[in-house]
Amino acid sequence: MSAGEGPDAELLGRVFLSRVIEPGDEVGGRWVREFGLPEVVRRLRGDGAALPGVSGVRWAGLLARGARAEPERDLAVARAAGARFVPPGHAEWPGQLDDLGDARPLGLWVRGRPSLRMWALRSVAVVGARACTEYGTHVAATLAAGLAERGWVVVSGGAYGIDGAAHRGALAAGGATAAVLASGVDRPYPRGHAALIDRIAEQGLVVGELPPGDHPTPSRFILRNRVIAALTRGTVVVEAACRSGSLATARAAQRLGRYTMGVPGPVTSGLSAGVHELLRGEAVLVTDAAEVVELVGDIGELAPSRTGPVLPRDLLEPAARAVLAALPGDRAAPAGDIALGARTTPDEAIARLYELRALGYVERHGDGWKLTRQAMISVRTGRRPC
Amino acid sequence: MSAGEGPDAELLGRVFLSRVIEPGDEVGGRWVREFGLPEVVRRLRGDGAALPGVSGVRWAGLLARGARAEPERDLAVARAAGARFVPPGHAEWPGQLDDLGDARPLGLWVRGRPSLRMWALRSVAVVGARACTEYGTHVAATLAAGLAERGWVVVSGGAYGIDGAAHRGALAAGGATAAVLASGVDRPYPRGHAALIDRIAEQGLVVGELPPGDHPTPSRFILRNRVIAALTRGTVVVEAACRSGSLATARAAQRLGRYTMGVPGPVTSGLSAGVHELLRGEAVLVTDAAEVVELVGDIGELAPSRTGPVLPRDLLEPAARAVLAALPGDRAAPAGDIALGARTTPDEAIARLYELRALGYVERHGDGWKLTRQAMISVRTGRRPC
Repeated sequence: MSAGEGPDAELLGRVFLSRVIEPGDEVGGRWVREFGLPEVVRRLRGDGAALPGVSGVRWAGLLARGARAEPERDLAVARAAGARFVPPGHAEWPGQLDDLGDARPLGLWVRGRPSLRMWALRSVAVVGARACTEYGTHVAATLAAGLAERGWVVVSGGAYGIDGAAHRGALAAGGATAAVLASGVDRPYPRGHAALIDRIAEQGLVVGELPPGDHPTPSRFILRNRVIAALTRGTVVVEAACRSGSLATARAAQRLGRYTMGVPGPVTSGLSAGVHELLRGEAVLVTDAAEVVELVGDIGELAPSRTGPVLPRDLLEPAARAVLAALPGDRAAPAGDIALGARTTPDEAIARLYELRALGYVERHGDGWKLTRQAMISVRTGRRPC
Repeated sequence: MSAGEGPDAELLGRVFLSRVIEPGDEVGGRWVREFGLPEVVRRLRGDGAALPGVSGVRWAGLLARGARAEPERDLAVARAAGARFVPPGHAEWPGQLDDLGDARPLGLWVRGRPSLRMWALRSVAVVGARACTEYGTHVAATLAAGLAERGWVVVSGGAYGIDGAAHRGALAAGGATAAVLASGVDRPYPRGHAALIDRIAEQGLVVGELPPGDHPTPSRFILRNRVIAALTRGTVVVEAACRSGSLATARAAQRLGRYTMGVPGPVTSGLSAGVHELLRGEAVLVTDAAEVVELVGDIGELAPSRTGPVLPRDLLEPAARAVLAALPGDRAAPAGDIALGARTTPDEAIARLYELRALGYVERHGDGWKLTRQAMISVRTGRRPC
């Protein structure tokens, strides 16, 4: 790969770096900021002096990775697995990830139809223990379903336990869910969740920082959590023992100025002890989806009739316009009916409906979708809504 | 009864008023403050014009009650039931009740050996639902036992459910507990708790505003709660449905500047819903006795070795001095051994030990009692500890 210029070189450079530099490595982030992407790529390709801030041994390790990196091949493998690479600045890049500073991902690998940027606008993380109780499974699934029914995207880590229950709860409610993995998005982890994660990629989004084929490691799990925290408006911890990894997500959310919430449980349960610890600090106690939305929702959330779409209808993607046109003008309709009207699949309709929700065009009420009042006015009058 | 002067007249006047005026009646409190006790008694005896602020019908009702009141008889009945009357300003009066302003009790009827004033100094209320779950019973009993083992007095309302579990937990731990009733202290309510309340009067304190023989009413329950809140350093709600009476106690505690705490439970339990509501407000989430004590304890609580007794040994009651003398100088001893050494009963020893705890002479650690470091120094050197 040359260190040429232009959008392709930028993309290939970031794919190259996502193979060479570990997720969340702030030294790498600083290099890109201080030396510029082409120069960092050139040096890591072995052309020029070592970059500052790392030992000779570590630099040699990075050069060895750089020598083996094949970004064009990574992109081709990803494409074959239905994944795309979304770098910062891309139309699909969620701007809130920039809050991570030098620990910002070099780019994200994404599987799924929806726009990551739009889905992330109205998303909440629901995370917790892998070895959870039946109470935790029940609460996570109910909470996720309730969030989905209120038009919110449920983000989690795809793990066993609370994560899986949250994803399943959202899927079962015909809702939107995104799994942020600590592995390559073509190599779902844990293997026992391969079918679930494929289902999430169909109906929602599967996201990760690691290039195709990469495996998770303990530190990658921990660094993945910062992406979940940064991507969402808030993090809800459902069950967590003291010193659980999901508490790290909650603390990352707190540091990033996101809402941190916890669902209480019996004080006799060790799997609620970590959550209670969090609730004795700055986190807010929540008992259901309505309380989560009350906290993370903006003013428009509380008074939906007064807010309108944030993007003119003419600028919508054709697929989103088709779904919008299939909504009845006067009542709510289930996603399946809207899909039929738009001549598309239910999964595609769900992808667009949650995008349109983020843009203020539609609302979800229980099982049905309907136009917001502002969107209806713009439909009737032909006026641009904003 | 004459409207004469002197301590006896004051006492009889307040006993008379406690028969005529309902607990927590702020109009009555204002009368006493503005007109003075003798004058209020005289008028309510039918001698002179109506006092301001009540309707003619209500005044007539008060006069009818006044005509039937027999304070000397009430005192005799109380005495026969082992109860005494403690008016404001009495050596046993807990000064913190004055925070109630015009709603301050006219006096308290008290059964039990310990000094109400001293016990109340280091007390915590543990309250909650009558129709509680097994989880609630377990948590209340464990919490109360833990508080007792840390030298704290557990105050509750003597009711079925959480209240009863809290009293029993403290008693079972050889601890101190006080029941504040909404009935006459000679007529325990509920009847099914007669044996428990008698046991509390033996090992602890039974307290109430109502004169002998009086029954509880719905409003008396609610007004009783303000006494529980005012008497203690903080209130812990263990289980409570929304709109439960124990939430009123918690809110009263909040208004009075006391600590308000709640024990969380499953969000799937309606009997934790009221507690969670409280915890979403100003109340502090607690999961065990250590966390309660951490909050309500003063600096001396956190560093017991640095605080000494607050009352010189010479000024202690003889019974307390005898118990203090029976403590070994170098180690902890169980209450039973201390009782033997002091030639008294275990209940009497417990009454004095918690008084001595409030005064800073002794500490409880699990099942044993020992001298505080300061008290030991004063024993060895013969110096007055303060």
